[in-house]
Amino acid sequence: MDEIERIAPADAAPPGGHYAPATAWRDLLFVSGQLPVRPDGTHTADRPFEEQARQVLANLFAVLRAGGSSPERVLKVTVYVAGVEHWPAFNRLYAEAFGDAKPARAVVPVPELHHGYLVEVEAIAAR
Amino acid sequence: MDEIERIAPADAAPPGGHYAPATAWRDLLFVSGQLPVRPDGTHTADRPFEEQARQVLANLFAVLRAGGSSPERVLKVTVYVAGVEHWPAFNRLYAEAFGDAKPARAVVPVPELHHGYLVEVEAIAAR
Amino acid sequence: MDEIERIAPADAAPPGGHYAPATAWRDLLFVSGQLPVRPDGTHTADRPFEEQARQVLANLFAVLRAGGSSPERVLKVTVYVAGVEHWPAFNRLYAEAFGDAKPARAVVPVPELHHGYLVEVEAIAAR
Repeated sequence: MDEIERIAPADAAPPGGHYAPATAWRDLLFVSGQLPVRPDGTHTADRPFEEQARQVLANLFAVLRAGGSSPERVLKVTVYVAGVEHWPAFNRLYAEAFGDAKPARAVVPVPELHHGYLVEVEAIAAR
Repeated sequence: MDEIERIAPADAAPPGGHYAPATAWRDLLFVSGQLPVRPDGTHTADRPFEEQARQVLANLFAVLRAGGSSPERVLKVTVYVAGVEHWPAFNRLYAEAFGDAKPARAVVPVPELHHGYLVEVEAIAAR
Repeated sequence: MDEIERIAPADAAPPGGHYAPATAWRDLLFVSGQLPVRPDGTHTADRPFEEQARQVLANLFAVLRAGGSSPERVLKVTVYVAGVEHWPAFNRLYAEAFGDAKPARAVVPVPELHHGYLVEVEAIAAR
């Protein structure tokens, strides 16, 4: 039985609940739902959607790197948005961030998110 | 490091955003959230739920086939429905489509979906 | 092609739709969305959130055991809550249940759940 590693990036705020930022098992990395929290733990929930989207993608990439993966090695991303009207802006910033990488993806509208955030992102990656 | 393949079925509309219809890695296939878009790219969002459900399942099966998998090889399905009142109709059409196959499944009610659709389906499959 | 096993715990209510409680493939276990249904099939949807949360975690653990896994071997949990105000109570009961184990996790607010439930939980685990 291979060990399950807990991944916690040094350059991101610590989890606000009973979870690891990511778990790694063999060559798979499971990234917890990331919110647009700044690395110093302060919130961006009162900031425009674009700023939240950039922060949440930066947080996702930090966890990927800490887990020995990278945007190019992501298999599937699930995006939760509070309001489907944010879809086009998110897709644009996501395309900029991922560049040539095109993981499978689902964008799931939700009524609200923790702390009043507009976007949350989770992923499964190879490493 | 095994390559991550992008899967795109010939018999389905191309993705509307920055994602691959599915990614394959080793023997796993990750299918993006499928909407009930017709193969010619036209929308069924104004059509009854049953028609949308049949289309979205056809789209899912097209991606599975293109990725070297099949309904019998699906491990987990996640279904997003705009309105839990569609649960019984969806379950019935899903049972018809999957037949003897019974993957793990979660049905997740959402407030809305992209383009005003009533149902979206994603999956993880073996191949 | 390794077989896909269907897992059904003896000590939980049978599925209410066309799905297996979990599927196992090689060393991975995919647990279907669990609702806080009692083992005898009666509903807890009219009970306080805390009781629903304890029941749903008991159901999850029953499926994990039946599938040859355990809370310590869970890689990722997805929690759907009808109302983000239940986040703190859920996190507390979840921490009690999981103890030293800290899988990756996402908590996803939804507008409603099947049968009027307040919480649903699914998971991917190693075994």
